[in-house]
This record gives sequence, C-alpha cells and structure tokens, in this order.
Amino acid sequence: MSKNVVKQAGPFLVLAIAAIAALFIPSLPDFDGSKVYNSSDIAWVIVSTALVFLMTPALAFFYGGMVHRKNVLSTMIKSTVAAGVVTVLWIVVGFSLCFGESINGIIGNPSTFLFFKGVNSGAPWSLAPTIPFTLFSLFQLMFAIITPGLVVGAVAERIRFTSYVSFIVLFGLFVYAPLAHWSWHPEGFLFKMGALDFAGGTVVHISAGCAALAGALVLKRRKVHMANEEVPPANIPYVLIGTGLLWFGWFGFNAGSALGANALAVSAFATTNTAAASAGLSWMFFDVIRGKKPSVLGFCIGAVVGLVAITPGAGFVAIPQSIFIGFIAAIISNLAVYYKQKSTLDDTLDVFPCHGLGGMVGMLLTGVFATKTVNAAGNDGWFYGNIDFFLTQAKAMVIVVAYSFTVSYAIFKLINLFQPIRVSSEEEELGLDESQHNEKYVQGTLLISENGVVVEKEVKEF
Amino acid sequence: MSKNVVKQAGPFLVLAIAAIAALFIPSLPDFDGSKVYNSSDIAWVIVSTALVFLMTPALAFFYGGMVHRKNVLSTMIKSTVAAGVVTVLWIVVGFSLCFGESINGIIGNPSTFLFFKGVNSGAPWSLAPTIPFTLFSLFQLMFAIITPGLVVGAVAERIRFTSYVSFIVLFGLFVYAPLAHWSWHPEGFLFKMGALDFAGGTVVHISAGCAALAGALVLKRRKVHMANEEVPPANIPYVLIGTGLLWFGWFGFNAGSALGANALAVSAFATTNTAAASAGLSWMFFDVIRGKKPSVLGFCIGAVVGLVAITPGAGFVAIPQSIFIGFIAAIISNLAVYYKQKSTLDDTLDVFPCHGLGGMVGMLLTGVFATKTVNAAGNDGWFYGNIDFFLTQAKAMVIVVAYSFTVSYAIFKLINLFQPIRVSSEEEELGLDESQHNEKYVQGTLLISENGVVVEKEVKEF
Amino acid sequence: MSKNVVKQAGPFLVLAIAAIAALFIPSLPDFDGSKVYNSSDIAWVIVSTALVFLMTPALAFFYGGMVHRKNVLSTMIKSTVAAGVVTVLWIVVGFSLCFGESINGIIGNPSTFLFFKGVNSGAPWSLAPTIPFTLFSLFQLMFAIITPGLVVGAVAERIRFTSYVSFIVLFGLFVYAPLAHWSWHPEGFLFKMGALDFAGGTVVHISAGCAALAGALVLKRRKVHMANEEVPPANIPYVLIGTGLLWFGWFGFNAGSALGANALAVSAFATTNTAAASAGLSWMFFDVIRGKKPSVLGFCIGAVVGLVAITPGAGFVAIPQSIFIGFIAAIISNLAVYYKQKSTLDDTLDVFPCHGLGGMVGMLLTGVFATKTVNAAGNDGWFYGNIDFFLTQAKAMVIVVAYSFTVSYAIFKLINLFQPIRVSSEEEELGLDESQHNEKYVQGTLLISENGVVVEKEVKEF
Repeated sequence: MSKNVVKQAGPFLVLAIAAIAALFIPSLPDFDGSKVYNSSDIAWVIVSTALVFLMTPALAFFYGGMVHRKNVLSTMIKSTVAAGVVTVLWIVVGFSLCFGESINGIIGNPSTFLFFKGVNSGAPWSLAPTIPFTLFSLFQLMFAIITPGLVVGAVAERIRFTSYVSFIVLFGLFVYAPLAHWSWHPEGFLFKMGALDFAGGTVVHISAGCAALAGALVLKRRKVHMANEEVPPANIPYVLIGTGLLWFGWFGFNAGSALGANALAVSAFATTNTAAASAGLSWMFFDVIRGKKPSVLGFCIGAVVGLVAITPGAGFVAIPQSIFIGFIAAIISNLAVYYKQKSTLDDTLDVFPCHGLGGMVGMLLTGVFATKTVNAAGNDGWFYGNIDFFLTQAKAMVIVVAYSFTVSYAIFKLINLFQPIRVSSEEEELGLDESQHNEKYVQGTLLISENGVVVEKEVKEF
Repeated sequence: MSKNVVKQAGPFLVLAIAAIAALFIPSLPDFDGSKVYNSSDIAWVIVSTALVFLMTPALAFFYGGMVHRKNVLSTMIKSTVAAGVVTVLWIVVGFSLCFGESINGIIGNPSTFLFFKGVNSGAPWSLAPTIPFTLFSLFQLMFAIITPGLVVGAVAERIRFTSYVSFIVLFGLFVYAPLAHWSWHPEGFLFKMGALDFAGGTVVHISAGCAALAGALVLKRRKVHMANEEVPPANIPYVLIGTGLLWFGWFGFNAGSALGANALAVSAFATTNTAAASAGLSWMFFDVIRGKKPSVLGFCIGAVVGLVAITPGAGFVAIPQSIFIGFIAAIISNLAVYYKQKSTLDDTLDVFPCHGLGGMVGMLLTGVFATKTVNAAGNDGWFYGNIDFFLTQAKAMVIVVAYSFTVSYAIFKLINLFQPIRVSSEEEELGLDESQHNEKYVQGTLLISENGVVVEKEVKEF
Repeated sequence: MSKNVVKQAGPFLVLAIAAIAALFIPSLPDFDGSKVYNSSDIAWVIVSTALVFLMTPALAFFYGGMVHRKNVLSTMIKSTVAAGVVTVLWIVVGFSLCFGESINGIIGNPSTFLFFKGVNSGAPWSLAPTIPFTLFSLFQLMFAIITPGLVVGAVAERIRFTSYVSFIVLFGLFVYAPLAHWSWHPEGFLFKMGALDFAGGTVVHISAGCAALAGALVLKRRKVHMANEEVPPANIPYVLIGTGLLWFGWFGFNAGSALGANALAVSAFATTNTAAASAGLSWMFFDVIRGKKPSVLGFCIGAVVGLVAITPGAGFVAIPQSIFIGFIAAIISNLAVYYKQKSTLDDTLDVFPCHGLGGMVGMLLTGVFATKTVNAAGNDGWFYGNIDFFLTQAKAMVIVVAYSFTVSYAIFKLINLFQPIRVSSEEEELGLDESQHNEKYVQGTLLISENGVVVEKEVKEF
C-alpha cells in the first residue's frame, strides 16, 4: 500500500519539487545582444524551433496510425508526453549536461546551467554567435524531445506507460546528453575527432534506433507477433498526416541547423526535400518490383527514411547527390524490414531498420558525398578522394551505435527491476489504451438499422 | 413566411452590403516604411500571424474531439466560422473599435479605420514601430478570431448555429473590442492603470472564460447532463492533434507578441513551452494521485491550461518560474473541473475552469513573478517586493471578469429574445450535426459479414 | 509477361538512372551572396516554401475527406505522391524548363540547369534579387508540386494509380513548365504582354482546373454518377483540417510571392485572409438562401474558392476590395457547381468550377481592381479607368485556358493508349483503396455486443 502511494505520488512530488525549487533561481539581467544578434537569424531559428516541436505530435500520428486500433492512444501519448518530461528535465539539468562546461569532453557539468540559471543572461553559443543563447537552447531542446519519442515505435503495444516515462528520463540523462555533448560541444570528443553530423543523424536517429532495438529485445515479442497474426494499421490517414507534418517540420530540423537565415540553410532545405521525395518513390517502386502494390504506407515510410538518411549530411552534401542518398537509403531499409519480418525480432514499427539503419547510411554517405563547395566548414568525402573522412564517420558511427545500444539496454533492464516493464498478458490482450489510460480510440454505442428496425449495439473494439 | 425570408436572406444581404460598400474605399499610397521598418521583425510577425490563425482550426479539433459523436461537426464549425465572421467584421469596423482614436479610453472611434481606410497608408502603431501598421492589425485580428472560438466549448451540443453566429458579432463588438482597447491602446484605461497583459490573458482568455460561464448559464443544462449520462469523447486523437497545433500556434501567440524578432520573443517562447510542459505533466500526475489513470485527455487539457496561464506573463516572467506557473495553474483548474462536475453548472468542455480560471491565475501570477530583468518595459512583482503591481493586476482582473461576464450574459439573453438560442429537444436528441447542418461525422452503410454472408447495415449514429 | 516486368520495373529503373546520373553533377562553389542577399527575405521565403509544401498533404485531406470511404487513401496518395515525383523531376529538368534560358519566350532550355547544375552557384533570379537562386527554385518547386495534386479531385474514384503518376510527369513537362515560363520568366510571352498573375492564378489554378475538366471528360462518368447515387463524404473533419492547413499554407503561397519580408507581403497576406473569410461566408449564406442548411463543407469549399480567386491579384488589389472578390467568386462557383450537378459532367470534387472558374474570376477581377497604389510594379484596373489592362488579363486567361485544356486532354488520351487509364469495373466497385493499393481506410474486425454476447464481425466496408 505504502509502496503504491509512493508510486502514485512519486512523479507528482518530483515535479512539485522542481517547480518550487525553480522559484528561487535569481533572474540576472539579459545579455545585451545589440552588437552581436542578427534578427533575421533569430526569426528563422525561432520558427525552426517551432517546426521541430511540431514533429513530436506529428510522430504521434505517424506511429499511432500504424498500431492496432486498441493501442492508438497509448502509442500517441508516449511520444507526446516527451514534450512534457524532456522540457522540464532540460530546464532543470538536461541542457547543462549537454552544453555545460565540458568535463573531459565526456559530459557537461550539470551545475553550469542548473535550472537554466545564466542562460538568458549568457553570451551566444560559440557555434551560434548571432542568436540568443536561450534560443540555441530551445532549438536543441526540441531535438532532445523527439529522440525518446522515436523509440516508442519499437516498444509499442506492450510497454507500461510509467515505465516509458522512466525510460524518457534515464535515456535523456544517460544516452542523449552524452551523445549531444560528444557531437555538438566544441570540447566533445567526437566533435574534436572531426566527425560531422549536421542535424542529428547520430545523436537523434542512430541513438533512437539502437535504443529501439534494445527495447524490443528486453521487452520481448508481443503475443500477436508470436502468433504470427497480422496487425492491421488503425488509421492510414493518420500516418499520412503524420508524414506530411514530419516532412514539414524537418525543414526546421535540417535547414534550421544552419542556425541562421542563409544560403546554407537553403541548401540543407533542398537536400532534405529531395532526399525525402526520392526515398518515398524508391520505397514504393521497389515494393512494386517485389510484387507488391504501391502503397500509402510505403511512400510515407520511405519518405521518412529519406529524411533520416539526409539528416547528418543535409548541410554538407550537394543537392543532386541527395537524390541518390534518398534512393539508396530507402532500398536498404526496405530490405532490412523484409529480413526483420522473417526474424523473431519484434520491433513493432521498424524503428531500428528505419531510423537506426537510415541514420547509419546517412552518416556513411556523408563521409562519401560531403564537399567543401557546399560548406567550407565541412569536409570532402570519399567520392571527392578523401577516404580519411569516411573512416572518421564510420568510427564515430560505431562508437555511437555501441554506446547507445548498450546503455539503453541497461536502462530497460534496470526499469524492469523496479516494476515489470511490460504490461500483463490480460492488459496486452485488452489493449493498452484501455488498460493503461482508460480511454478508447473509438467508443460508444453503434445504432444500426436491421430490416428497418434500429437496434443499439455496444462497440467493444473497433 | 416573410420573417423566414428575412432570416434566410439576412446574413447574405449583410455580407453583400459590406462587400459592395468596400468597393468604394479609396486606396491611398502605401506608407513609406523604408526608414522605420525592420524586415526581420516583419518576417517573424507575419509568421506569428499565420501561427495564431492556425490555432482556430486547431481549437476546432481540440473541442470537436471531446463532444459526442453526433455533435462533432457542429462544434468544429462554430469555432472555425469565427475566422470568416470576425475577419469581415474586423475590416469593416472591428479594428477601428479596438485601435481607432480613443474615445475617453473606453473605445476606439469606429470611423477611424472604417473599412480599413488608412491602414495600408498609415504609419506603424506606436507600440510596434518596426512593422507595417497592416501587419499589426492582422496579428491582432487573429486574436479577435480565436476568442469567440473559445467560448464554443461551453455552449456546445445545444446552441443553435445562427444564434452562435450572432453571438460572435455581438461579442466582438461589445466585449472584445472594448477590452482590447482598454488593455492594448496606449489611451486605454487599463493600460494607463499599469496592468500588464503580455499576450491576452485578460482580453482573450478571461473574457472567453467568463462569456463561457454566461453562455452555460443562459443556455441551461443539456439533457444528458441532467440525466447524468456520460458523454464519451468522439475522437481523442483529434484532441491530441488539436493540442499539438495549439501548442505550436501559441508560439506565435506569445512569442509573436514581442512584435519583433528579438530576445524578448525568445524568452516568451521559452516560458510558453515550459509552462505547457509543466502543466501537462502536473494535470496528469495530479490525476494519478487522485486515483485515476494517466490519460491523453488529461495531458492535453493540462498543457492548454498551462498555455493559458503563461499568456499574460509570457514576456514578463523568467523561465525557471514558468515551471511553477504551469504546475500550479493545472492543479487549480483540475480541482475546479472536479468541483464543477459535482455542481449543476453545464459548461460542456470546461471553458470557464480552464480558460477563465487559467487566465486569472496567470494575471495574478504575473503580478507575483514579473521582473524587470526579463523585460525593462514590464514591472517587478510581489515576489520581488512590489505588492502594488500585484494589486493592480488583481484590480484589472476583477474589472475584466465583471465586464465580460455581465455583457456576455446580456448578449446571450438578447439573442434568445429574437429566436430560441437553444435547439429544440428533438434536435438536441438527434444531434446538432444533423439537425443544424445536415451533415454527419461518419455516415453511410456498413457492410459486415455475418456467418460468411455479407449484409448491409445502415449506420444511424456512430 | 515481359511487358509486365517492364511495367513493374520501369518506374524504379527511371528513378535509379536519375539517382545515379545525379552523382556525376559537379558541385561548383556557392555564389557569394554577401553583398546582395537580405537575410530577412531569406527567412520569410524559406518559411513560405515550407508553408506551400504543407498545402500538398493539406489538399490530400481536403479531397480525401470528400470521396467515398472506399477511395480515401487512393485519393490522398495521388496528391501526396506529387511531392515525390515533381521534386525529382524538378531537379532533373523541370526547373530548367520553367526558368532556364528562354527559347523564344516559349520554354526554358532544358540543359540550363539540368540536374540542378549551376543553381547553388548561380546569381539570384532577377525578380528575386535578395534571396539565393536555390531558394527561388525551391519556392517555385512547391507550386509545381501542388498543381497536379489539384487535378486529382476531378478524376478521383476511377483513375488508375500508375496512370496518374504518368499524368503528373507529362503534365509537369508539357503544361506546367510552359505556363510557368510564359507567365513568370521575364522573357515569357505572357509576362511581356503585361498580364499579371501574382501567385499563380493562371499557372496553378486555371491550368489545374482545365486539366481537371479534360480528365473528367476522358475518364468518363463513375458508375455511381451514372446511377445517380449519392456519395457520402467519408470524413468531414478531414475536409476541415485540410481547409485549415490550406488556408494557413496559402499565406506562404500568396504573401511569400512578394519574395521578401516587406509591406507587399503583408498586403497580400491581408487580401488572402479577407477573401477566404468572405468567400466561406458567402458560399454558406448563399446555400441558406437557396434553402439548404449552412454546412461545414460549404464553408470549407467556399473559403478555398476565395483563396483561389484572390491568388492572381493578392499583391495587386487593395484590402477592402478583397471582400468583394471573395464574395462574388464564391457565388459564381456555387452556381457553377449547381449547374454541373444537373449535367452529365462527372468532375468528382468540382475542381473545374472551384479552381478553374475561381482562377478565371480572379484573373479578371485582378484586371478590374488592381491598383498601383498597392503595388507600383502592378497596373491599374478597369475600376480605375484602365480597360486595356482588363483586356490583357482576359486575353492571357483565354490563352491559358485553351492551352491547358487541350494539352491536358491530349495527355490523358495518350496515357489511355498505353494502358486503360481507368480501373476496371470490378476495381471501381471494390474501391480504389483496396484494388490499387491493397490498403483500407478502416479495417479489421468489429466486436459488438448483441444481447450481452460479444460477437465478432468482419467489416468489409465502412
């Protein structure tokens, strides 16, 4: 009973403590940016931040439309709630861990910007010198939100809601924060190594993809998966609107990563759109070659794979080459999904083959196709004769894959020690919408006319 | 019969007259803004205006997903149609009433910008000196649109469509316009009193919340409310996408209210996002303490309450304190909803406890936590030793509550004199979608297989 | 068999060839824009580009919600896939055809920017001198995407998917590209003639509307149309969210067409919003006069007609007059839909009366209400005494109508030669979602309780 009370009151109390503690953070005068801020860059990055935010509800629809209709809401809320959890965590300590004073290139000092102290009053970040430091932090926050949101797809239809909330917190602290520090802090060791990741191919997509694989392994297979039952997607239009909003938001994700309203942002916008287009078609047409019909789901999933694959190189590769990047990434992920389906791995919505592999392909192809003509701050890739850079990318990739998989695996296992990470068999059968949230995707009675007589029927499941 | 013709032709004729009269408004040369306009500020405020526009369809989904499935469309269209009605009203006379030459600080002179004359050719507004006057007017218009759209939630499932259209017009003229004038015109008496409302806590949310209360009282209880029947929400994913788009659009609402692409906009963006996150979690976790399951609806409603509560202080309070504002506002509204449910008040979707109370909490906490370190044009609050400012906020709040409730009550009563404001009992039973609009949320026949034989069943209601 | 292999492998191979060929396009150093770029203009046009992109999935929902529930997905994907097909086509040769070196004012030289060579390294477009040439190209791309997407509405519920993909390619090459060249290239013959089309009334809406008419004629009537059966709209909330997102995106379409963050963009934003509002009300109120109930569909369709009608004049007419433009355009299209319904023409979702006629009305009213006080680069219309300009607009309109109808008709006929453009009778009956894509809008089993016993029923169609 007492343990139950702790469980029930715990999250509320933690939030209450954070809310009250935050009251006592003194406000220092704002940094005087009159000489360094560029208001156009502010305008564009502020919009980009909003666009990346929108990707989280978009993802909720992309995933929610693909699961069984008894698990739609529980899938959607797990992505969405990251906007709540990660925001508060970010203010309290997350931003510090990512971008605080570097501790040996491994992690940021948690006290540097504890409770956001010194952020509004701070000078711009060295790599974003024309926008307020707070804006840089907000833009980064949106990336930190969507990353655990991506993992949901792999563990959907069986993970307990409270376990997932715990995962978001632990993943944020022990996987996302170190990776962001390594890759994007000038003292970070991957940054120093010369690995290039324009907008989060490693930090966001590879890490989410590997955590997804870890989660699927720890959680084991769903009952329907073991029974080899097909799960009809609950609502394909949701997948389509999710894809549309993800594509739209990704312009902020990638083009916003130029951190200014400039030609580099434009070039990244172009590669992003092109790779998505090419990958959507590639997946759909490849399906047709293999004897399937061209499908809405195929185009949507392919487009998202293209967006993932272009992410690390969006601001480093030229536009024509982005057609190829999207084209080949979609084929690789399509084949990976095919072989996964023949295996016993139950990654519900293919997060590893799509985001994990897509990110890896993107990192490697950045190593191939990057060119200094697009971005002088970048590098030349293998295609332009510089195999060293390709090997650096490969090395960074391997490190990120190994770290994010191992630590995520440990996190899922750890959570499982405190309470079963997976819902009970009955709850799984009933659906997580009802068992975890007491809500229904569609509910109520159905009045149908039978031979002219209207009868009422209760819809149990739809 | 002739009265019916007037009713049928009335709205069309009014619109026709406005459309034809507008033809004769002469176009003066545009204001030469080359020396005063800042194109970055234009870029950001134009985007913000579009974002605030998007909140109206977002609200339609937020509300439409919560009502009974026989009232989805009628709820959605009542919010959405405000984009039509208020836009035309705004051009004709609304903008003048809000921001025309002040008549004793009470109301703008309706002739100042009648039919938008002199707007494109006018100098920038004194409080938005770097953007075209027309842009200021458009940004303000979007606020005027969403306010009556918010009231819909309280009167849903029983108000006649044409009555609601009348309400939009009368509320715009007699409630919104005076309040906007009082608060945001430099000659307005609340403005002069020193009350601060960054982005519309009083003008938008308190006024809508109080009008909602008035509407619920005048319209009386729904039959299902009296019968104590539960109304299952028609479509929770709609609520979720509505919330996502509202949150996204609110960045324009609050950060756009800085009226420029600057550090203040960034700070307001940060407080907005933080309060929403904190409030969403707070509502959900508070539900858990009280023995409920964490729900999608809870997170969504909580987040919106947080957005409401931070609105008046978004550009005046510091970021850490916004965690607390969201946290406490959600608890207060959550409790208010609980007590409301035990009462006989039938505010269908809790507009008063969420928007009304949320706005009040926000106004008062602005009086507590505002600090000049964030915004030199603001003030210091009680927390920083200045109780006077807190009392000013409280005074302004009381005035707005009293005025908006009283006048809205009178408007609903007045409308009821001309035709019954409420649909008939049969229409309510049938659902407003069909009785008011002759449309159905879901329609057609359902073919189901019974023992292998496919039979056709007509879906009457779903 | 071998022919089948070609059919199956063809699209994939074409894409593969494009992807591989693109690899060998050399990257030249970026154009040095430090002296000519205006970063505020970049910020605004980049956002506008994203907004116009969003209109394509928005359109998918607008159309998808109106068709029969067995054709929802097939309708949605046909609009959406244009984002894939047209993007790749644009990079390869489309942009060149539109904006390459002019060949006698008729068409651009396909080799000028083949595979986007020279775009990133090129100087800004003469009519968009402050933004990167690549950004201009991206903004234009989004217009090229949505145009074939609009045609879908006329041929929905019976056109084969692969035929539609072919149509997108051929329409892009032989209709869109020439029209864009004629109207927007400084050497284009309509441009030189003095016709004004601010944001695509001719190139986008009239051309789509006329292609729609051609498509409906070639494809002939649906079986339900011949049987005079009513098709209940599958999901009216989809139409509403589609409309909301279209309206939102149209701010980028029209205000973005100012190609800078300036007062002209603001004015175009205002006329856009006003015309949409006025037209939505006009359609709805006109319905009421004619004895119908005010409907969600009516408001939505009306608003879109208003947006179409204001498009050519958005940056040339003054704000008050835009009330009238929306008002009258909605009445004309409303009547046209009424007469179409009495005819044997089967334009499924009224693309010709809405987009075709709406665009024509807009072109002509631009000729009436344009004024140099709004845009010195524009002209004065008939209302201001200059009947010559009106006649120029009329002449341009007739040319575009004749060309786009004739060539589109030929394209549909040509496609029909290679494989039947229309699905088989059985496929039409079954629905295109299942027959073309093997997907269902709603699927699975329905468990309903009958007299307390839960029975499982398979939903065949819903």
